[in-house]
Amino acid sequence: MDRSAEFRRWKAQCLSKADLSRKGSVDEDVVELVQLLNGREEFFTTSSCAGRIILLDGGVDGFEVQKQNCCWLLVTHKPCVKDDVIVALKKANSDAILKFEPFILHVQCRQLQDAQILHSVAIDSGFRNSGITVGKRGKTMLAVRSTHGLEVPLSHKGQLMVTEEYIDFLLKIANQKMEENKKRIERFYSCLQHALEREAITNSHPREKIRGEKNSSYSPKKKRNTEKARGKCITEENDKELENDDDDDPGISVPFFPEDY
Amino acid sequence: MDRSAEFRRWKAQCLSKADLSRKGSVDEDVVELVQLLNGREEFFTTSSCAGRIILLDGGVDGFEVQKQNCCWLLVTHKPCVKDDVIVALKKANSDAILKFEPFILHVQCRQLQDAQILHSVAIDSGFRNSGITVGKRGKTMLAVRSTHGLEVPLSHKGQLMVTEEYIDFLLKIANQKMEENKKRIERFYSCLQHALEREAITNSHPREKIRGEKNSSYSPKKKRNTEKARGKCITEENDKELENDDDDDPGISVPFFPEDY
Repeated sequence: MDRSAEFRRWKAQCLSKADLSRKGSVDEDVVELVQLLNGREEFFTTSSCAGRIILLDGGVDGFEVQKQNCCWLLVTHKPCVKDDVIVALKKANSDAILKFEPFILHVQCRQLQDAQILHSVAIDSGFRNSGITVGKRGKTMLAVRSTHGLEVPLSHKGQLMVTEEYIDFLLKIANQKMEENKKRIERFYSCLQHALEREAITNSHPREKIRGEKNSSYSPKKKRNTEKARGKCITEENDKELENDDDDDPGISVPFFPEDY
Repeated sequence: MDRSAEFRRWKAQCLSKADLSRKGSVDEDVVELVQLLNGREEFFTTSSCAGRIILLDGGVDGFEVQKQNCCWLLVTHKPCVKDDVIVALKKANSDAILKFEPFILHVQCRQLQDAQILHSVAIDSGFRNSGITVGKRGKTMLAVRSTHGLEVPLSHKGQLMVTEEYIDFLLKIANQKMEENKKRIERFYSCLQHALEREAITNSHPREKIRGEKNSSYSPKKKRNTEKARGKCITEENDKELENDDDDDPGISVPFFPEDY
């Protein structure tokens, strides 16, 4: 079976399976994006979370929250108020932690070039910790990830370590992050639409493709500038952006920044 | 110029440049790892941070800490005590945030296959948010990233929002994360050594290579099991591990988990 046929088989198999998540459905804020991707022959999504505020109890074992031994006191994909957390905290008898987890999406891609296009869109939309995985049989996956959210220990052995006023302050920050996260998802959707349109134009003008970049994941500068002028999708030619946030940061040992990949 | 020659040129250029980081040198805990990578013809490192506890002031603008407008009150790559933070917090006049940032490393790779090997090592060592970037001219970079650290707002408009007791509690958690982070770096070093040895064996037995996996980034099961028995490097054949932590998590919409990439 050729690569394309194999990919179509995987996709059909994936999309026919039941949603195994606790919620059992795709989060409202990413339904359109998931549909856009799954409607394209070169992509299908394998998991997603629009972003959420969660309160976990227990199971901090050294470095990581141990999901097996911890209890979910609260999960919400909507803004959250102090009283919800206060009520949920009453059930905590171990180490409760409040977290904001931003949007995450896994997309299987037909080939590396498709993953590169999607990666570029993800970075341009602000999801700077995104990255490609290529498995041993060539399965190619893009993980869309944001820079860190928020992770705040609130209680120890069932004992609350902060004031209600602090929880209120914290939730304002978490809700703000939730709002910004939503904007980024919208930006991602809009950037993706434009990138796919550009791809369609490039593919229908093969001579232009030969004259242009070898890799079609980047459109000629002129087109991108037009896009910028329209203000629809802010992108930068500079691939430095493909790096982590921390690269702006003089505290990191950086013998060299590749100016242009 | 062929790809290998181009890669050698980039590498020479990179390693001859001055370290532009504030610190001006590679962090102590990752010197050996950086040397191991730079001693190989297929890799060179472009940036690194061993992991650190930082206290930032101000510049929270919606979602992100704005690095341009914020002030670094404290940075340490070593365990930290309460008094250090209390003293540093006296200088805060905006929104102070305590963060633990785990190990991060960027490695430019000669070709995709080299990045796959390194990616596999990173995942096996616990750096589950690692990912590959392939630039428009084919430059291939692996970012080694951990799952999230710790990000805790401490003050608002210069006003401390938590108690000293809470700061003490928080630093115990941050120091524990620092310790676990160090163990992961050591595991990464050891796993990398083994992977490179396996590569050398595979390359010196081309017939074995033909009989085995197409992609040399994965050694035959038998060898990996021997490795496990020795307890030197815990690895799993299952590529599910290449996914984010959140994939264990029933809260995420998951129509399908690829069982084997």
